[in-house]
Amino acid sequence: MTDKKNAYHKVRMERKKTQIDASIAKANIEKGILLVITGNGKGKSTSAFGMVARALGHDLKVGVCQFIKSRTDTGEEAFFSAQPNCEWHVLGDGFTWDTQNREQDIATSERGWQIAEKMLSDPSYDLVVLDELTYLLSYDYIDKQRVLSALQARPEMQHVVVTGRSAAAELKEIADTVSEIQEVKHAYKSGVKAQIGVDF
Amino acid sequence: MTDKKNAYHKVRMERKKTQIDASIAKANIEKGILLVITGNGKGKSTSAFGMVARALGHDLKVGVCQFIKSRTDTGEEAFFSAQPNCEWHVLGDGFTWDTQNREQDIATSERGWQIAEKMLSDPSYDLVVLDELTYLLSYDYIDKQRVLSALQARPEMQHVVVTGRSAAAELKEIADTVSEIQEVKHAYKSGVKAQIGVDF
Repeated sequence: MTDKKNAYHKVRMERKKTQIDASIAKANIEKGILLVITGNGKGKSTSAFGMVARALGHDLKVGVCQFIKSRTDTGEEAFFSAQPNCEWHVLGDGFTWDTQNREQDIATSERGWQIAEKMLSDPSYDLVVLDELTYLLSYDYIDKQRVLSALQARPEMQHVVVTGRSAAAELKEIADTVSEIQEVKHAYKSGVKAQIGVDF
Repeated sequence: MTDKKNAYHKVRMERKKTQIDASIAKANIEKGILLVITGNGKGKSTSAFGMVARALGHDLKVGVCQFIKSRTDTGEEAFFSAQPNCEWHVLGDGFTWDTQNREQDIATSERGWQIAEKMLSDPSYDLVVLDELTYLLSYDYIDKQRVLSALQARPEMQHVVVTGRSAAAELKEIADTVSEIQEVKHAYKSGVKAQIGVDF
């Protein structure tokens, strides 16, 4: 019985291997990817940070722009800003309910976006992370068309990751890969505090 | 008009700040979190790797078990296995269609799981990543109850991240946080090759 099961498994897997190899062979375009990670679930920024590690592991040069957030005591910043190939910018003043000042938020966003624009026009950056960028668009702090244009005009081989809730339809439209992280369950909602190494 | 808009914004944000502060104050439990990242979209493993970086940035000790995958040329492995506080194990022989040998897959899974079990009983690991663990359960390579028991009996303050598609209902049940990554769009399906620094 088990022998039969194993033999059947082998036949199925040989067939699958042929299909997968054919599918891999068909995917032959090489280009800079625009990856958008959106949705309400936990894991958007952390996923971008995982890509930073992956890129650094291949000796690529990485630029990170963190919008909105202002805290500089995070594990990710401590860790990555110590890496030689990684440039890390914390470009926010806090959430809208922290600053409580729309004009200030707009001015801060403008300053931050100019740093991002420089990266997006510099082919020496292999990967650019625009963390929480979606909020600058949904709050209308930065003109959407300006952001889309900068993303589309970037160097051909440059990869970009954009994170944040409620990504604009036009942004998803020009992206190569879009993942939406759904929150099925969140510890915070069961009374668990934001914790070092997990949440920041 | 803009002044009025700004003033109204301030009032709304003050109110929001009060609500958010109250909600943060209520979340006062500190404990090791079990985080499950599942779904078909891109970003599950990378999200776990981002948590590794975050934890290392706070000088926490991290153990990573990569099941299924056998490749050792990934950026994440090159990068993290060079970090002093990070122990990295590649514990797979490849996908089922690579090995085409169910008995071998089961034996490999058993050896890998024993390494994971040791980490799950050692409080010196602050964060344990069990990358692609879900497949060991869905292929029935490791007994589900054994995995659930080890996760539940782990040190109180130890955080664990489990990744992989189709996480079992019982695993999601005992998890503190569950995120499901939906694939909205994937570059590979438009003919883009898996690329260095993005996909591995």
